[in-house]
Amino acid sequence: MSFRSHFCGTLSQSDDGLKVSLAGWVDVRRDLGGVIFIELRDHTGKLQLVADPQINPQVYKVFETLKAEYCIKIQGIIKNRPAGTENPDLRTGAVEIYPESVEILNKSKTLPLPLKDFEDTDELFRLKYRFLDLRRDSMQKNIRFRHKITQAIRDYLVAKDFLEIETPILTKSTPEGARDYLVPSRMQKGKFFALPQSPQLFKQLLMISGFEKYFQVARCFRDEDLRADRQPEFTQIDIEMSFINIEDIISNTEGIFENIFKVIGKNVKLPFQRMDYDTAMNLYGKDAPDLRFDMKLIDFTDIMETSGFESFSKIVSKNGIVKGLCVPTKDWSRKEYDDLKNLVTTKEYGAKGLAWITYKENNEIASPIAKFFSEEELSKIKTRANAKEGDSIFFVADKKEIVHNALGRLRLHLGEKLNLIDKNKDEFVWIVNWPLFEKDHISGKLNVMHHPFTSPDMKDLHLLDTEPVKVRALAYDIVYNGVELGGGSIRTYREDIQKKVLQLLNIEDEEIENRFGFLLQALSLGAPPHGGIALGLDRLVMMLAKETSLRQVIAFPKVQSSSCPLTEAPSEVDSEQLEELALKISLPNPS
Amino acid sequence: MSFRSHFCGTLSQSDDGLKVSLAGWVDVRRDLGGVIFIELRDHTGKLQLVADPQINPQVYKVFETLKAEYCIKIQGIIKNRPAGTENPDLRTGAVEIYPESVEILNKSKTLPLPLKDFEDTDELFRLKYRFLDLRRDSMQKNIRFRHKITQAIRDYLVAKDFLEIETPILTKSTPEGARDYLVPSRMQKGKFFALPQSPQLFKQLLMISGFEKYFQVARCFRDEDLRADRQPEFTQIDIEMSFINIEDIISNTEGIFENIFKVIGKNVKLPFQRMDYDTAMNLYGKDAPDLRFDMKLIDFTDIMETSGFESFSKIVSKNGIVKGLCVPTKDWSRKEYDDLKNLVTTKEYGAKGLAWITYKENNEIASPIAKFFSEEELSKIKTRANAKEGDSIFFVADKKEIVHNALGRLRLHLGEKLNLIDKNKDEFVWIVNWPLFEKDHISGKLNVMHHPFTSPDMKDLHLLDTEPVKVRALAYDIVYNGVELGGGSIRTYREDIQKKVLQLLNIEDEEIENRFGFLLQALSLGAPPHGGIALGLDRLVMMLAKETSLRQVIAFPKVQSSSCPLTEAPSEVDSEQLEELALKISLPNPS
Repeated sequence: MSFRSHFCGTLSQSDDGLKVSLAGWVDVRRDLGGVIFIELRDHTGKLQLVADPQINPQVYKVFETLKAEYCIKIQGIIKNRPAGTENPDLRTGAVEIYPESVEILNKSKTLPLPLKDFEDTDELFRLKYRFLDLRRDSMQKNIRFRHKITQAIRDYLVAKDFLEIETPILTKSTPEGARDYLVPSRMQKGKFFALPQSPQLFKQLLMISGFEKYFQVARCFRDEDLRADRQPEFTQIDIEMSFINIEDIISNTEGIFENIFKVIGKNVKLPFQRMDYDTAMNLYGKDAPDLRFDMKLIDFTDIMETSGFESFSKIVSKNGIVKGLCVPTKDWSRKEYDDLKNLVTTKEYGAKGLAWITYKENNEIASPIAKFFSEEELSKIKTRANAKEGDSIFFVADKKEIVHNALGRLRLHLGEKLNLIDKNKDEFVWIVNWPLFEKDHISGKLNVMHHPFTSPDMKDLHLLDTEPVKVRALAYDIVYNGVELGGGSIRTYREDIQKKVLQLLNIEDEEIENRFGFLLQALSLGAPPHGGIALGLDRLVMMLAKETSLRQVIAFPKVQSSSCPLTEAPSEVDSEQLEELALKISLPNPS
Repeated sequence: MSFRSHFCGTLSQSDDGLKVSLAGWVDVRRDLGGVIFIELRDHTGKLQLVADPQINPQVYKVFETLKAEYCIKIQGIIKNRPAGTENPDLRTGAVEIYPESVEILNKSKTLPLPLKDFEDTDELFRLKYRFLDLRRDSMQKNIRFRHKITQAIRDYLVAKDFLEIETPILTKSTPEGARDYLVPSRMQKGKFFALPQSPQLFKQLLMISGFEKYFQVARCFRDEDLRADRQPEFTQIDIEMSFINIEDIISNTEGIFENIFKVIGKNVKLPFQRMDYDTAMNLYGKDAPDLRFDMKLIDFTDIMETSGFESFSKIVSKNGIVKGLCVPTKDWSRKEYDDLKNLVTTKEYGAKGLAWITYKENNEIASPIAKFFSEEELSKIKTRANAKEGDSIFFVADKKEIVHNALGRLRLHLGEKLNLIDKNKDEFVWIVNWPLFEKDHISGKLNVMHHPFTSPDMKDLHLLDTEPVKVRALAYDIVYNGVELGGGSIRTYREDIQKKVLQLLNIEDEEIENRFGFLLQALSLGAPPHGGIALGLDRLVMMLAKETSLRQVIAFPKVQSSSCPLTEAPSEVDSEQLEELALKISLPNPS
């Protein structure tokens, strides 16, 4: 017994007269009083079935009982539809079948909501009934698209002699900046495994083991308070190579993207442009600039320093900066200006205020602050911004980090508001020349910008002791349409430098030994120069699918509370299980 | 700066005169007093370098400082070796290089043990220095072989339109017969995720979601007391299909094996033979028979029932059985017989004794039990066993399960001892027609032979209520050279049958709802007929690589105590981390 000879979505007029058996779901059933039409759906598409009591009363009788999402199996002959009754909206709309036999494989209770209404319903509901949600066209497409992208990446890497090597999921905590998920050990009570935030140390060990070219489609875990674009478990394309330099990693990664775009039938220009980290921050206020539109940040600090506008000059004298955006604001209402001001003073944007100068017709200026500037200063400002009639310049003055954050966000907001972003563009950029460290403004301690295994630029080695914040890292991020898709670095492969970096991060020698002893030992026993990159697969697929949520490209995602509405994980466990693990739950007192 | 133009292992006489740059490890260094030879190793092989102070004193000076496992980079010209100095043991043994320049990329401390001695050292030591152990030829080969097998499987499935879909690692406990690893949730304190023992329920949900053909190279987890051939985390090739029957799964799986064997340059005969579960148990005493040699279990129960040998007839009268093996034992010593007797009475084998009849020259019989039988009985026994001069028949009498276990193991032992197993054979067999349930001899409760989602054979549906142990399952295992590589089944896709099976397993309705409510609901909303299989990748690779330990084909395996000698995971964690999880360690009092 075979369930089917063909698939629904692949049949057409050229199959006229063909006897087929099909199986699938009742997608739509219409009873036209006398004749019943059913659209039968399988993973390839839909096909119209017709039951006419005059032609086949047995089949008609079964069709009368069918409801949405019943699973059925039919046999019959493909027929061209009568002229004028074709359905141009259906790929198979020119043919139909009057089944000779029909068998109900499985019934369905009434759905909690018709499939077509899932699109607009509450997401929690969609995820609780994910097995229905996934039956819909858009989700079927997304999951198939993800498969296609993953295979395009893998095919490229396998053809380039990369080895796919699996690294442990039950492992030891490594410092990737987020919280680890822990797994209590039963055999060694009181001890814990950590789920990997990335296979970082293992892939470095694989290089030290002589594999030279490694990749893995690797599941990673972070126990973070979920933001909209994070999942507690995520997948990264994890890559590492030996005896290479930055150029090798970059060109290999560009090759991956070239292959992805080929597979999805699009072009991409190679090589991608590169931008220094400092340039990205200065011109776009972000380390992941969206280059699909221009509107750069303009620096007015020097003009403001000596100007009569004290609010600005005071800030500059305290090492602050003044920057602005030149924005086409013709016909803006007063409210639109106020809205922007309210926006940049939210906690997220973090600015203390927003000032502006608007250039009206006849060289008129409308501005709450213009009166504080001389004619010459006003002229300089206008020239620097290349401002035209109908433009406004919006200024933010503060510490550099605050100005960049506020204007970087404002730029993106305006890009959307003014429709400046060409959504069909694909703008890739490598951000390079990162600092190795950043200083915590409160504690004064050094933190790493990427992770502690990133190699300093050898040219800056002499600065490690004297001016560590000036040390550049051999690190690179790949940014696509304003979103960081991944990053990597050449790694430190000398034991002495690795130890030095860990010490600069204020990690005690004993802790260095406990947590990284095995790495330092491996580095001391013939570690080759090596480096790599990790690409976030979920986000990459989401962006290429033009979706705005990771949950649209993950079959069974978690929601904000890190839980799964479908299985209701996490859940309570038996006290026996906890006893075996030598654990007790100790909930904080309700306050 | 590029590190190399070529790889060591690929150069040969046809490259004579070629200028190359190479990078790799100092594998061997020999100082012949005046001239220093180095074998340079990269992932492709080794190549001889020569430093002669007469020719290049700078290079010679550096070579004098090189030690084993230093990472170096050289430039030079490929030269044919002088006639008579070729090394036939080295693939590149006909050429060498007198480097023009050499650069030390990274030094190595003295190794804790020379690489060549790792093969024979203690495994704990090998795993502690896994990054050195993996540099050795045999481990490099195994890990590359694993990659190759995995890609062969994936290529086959992708070409057959299977979708690779990732299912969650942080999920809910499902009953696969082993203990779950738990992951405490921080956001929902007091609750736990479970790591999946298999993606079973998710792949069924994917079928219910309409994907129809799914696979995943899936990491799975079992918190078991480790036996030699188990790992706490392991990888399975997880497959599920909709609108199919057993034949579809079997032929698809056979296609996978055909492709694997093609990729490794071997032939395999399709289709694989099939054997009923009962036949396998009766003839080989095992549900995973090794068919590389014959020596079947012979049933003497009927003869013994009426014989004068009371020890046997009594057992038969109590529903026991008597079976035996006919074994070539020419020139065996008395001790060899005694050794077998000692073996079958160990706890593992579980028999209470071993009796035998030996057929000597001139129709003489040597046996401690022959005297209890009539001539006719002795003749019947000999005929049934087809015993010849020089053979012995070994008998075990007991309950069926005990007899099969003891003789099944004894058969394998004798296969090895007598060199009956052709190690070059590849014998596949499908074990089919499994019982759905087995009865626990002590509690009398029903357990499932596979898992509770296995479909009963529809022909046996009427027996569910009356004689559930007689119900056959639509299950199948694939066995290769006596080892189960995987198993699967057609799943129950009707809600009522699934609920019934769970109830027969004595699970309370409330627990059914808590643990399987979402599955039952999914089954009630248009679940298609579906089924699948899971193949153990680690074991498959191990067997094809002719290794005897899974740790030989896993880059970073765990040892008996489920710990990792390299990273020392699991390890202690901060009390802060535990507090965040609302957990306290409560070690049992030392007793």
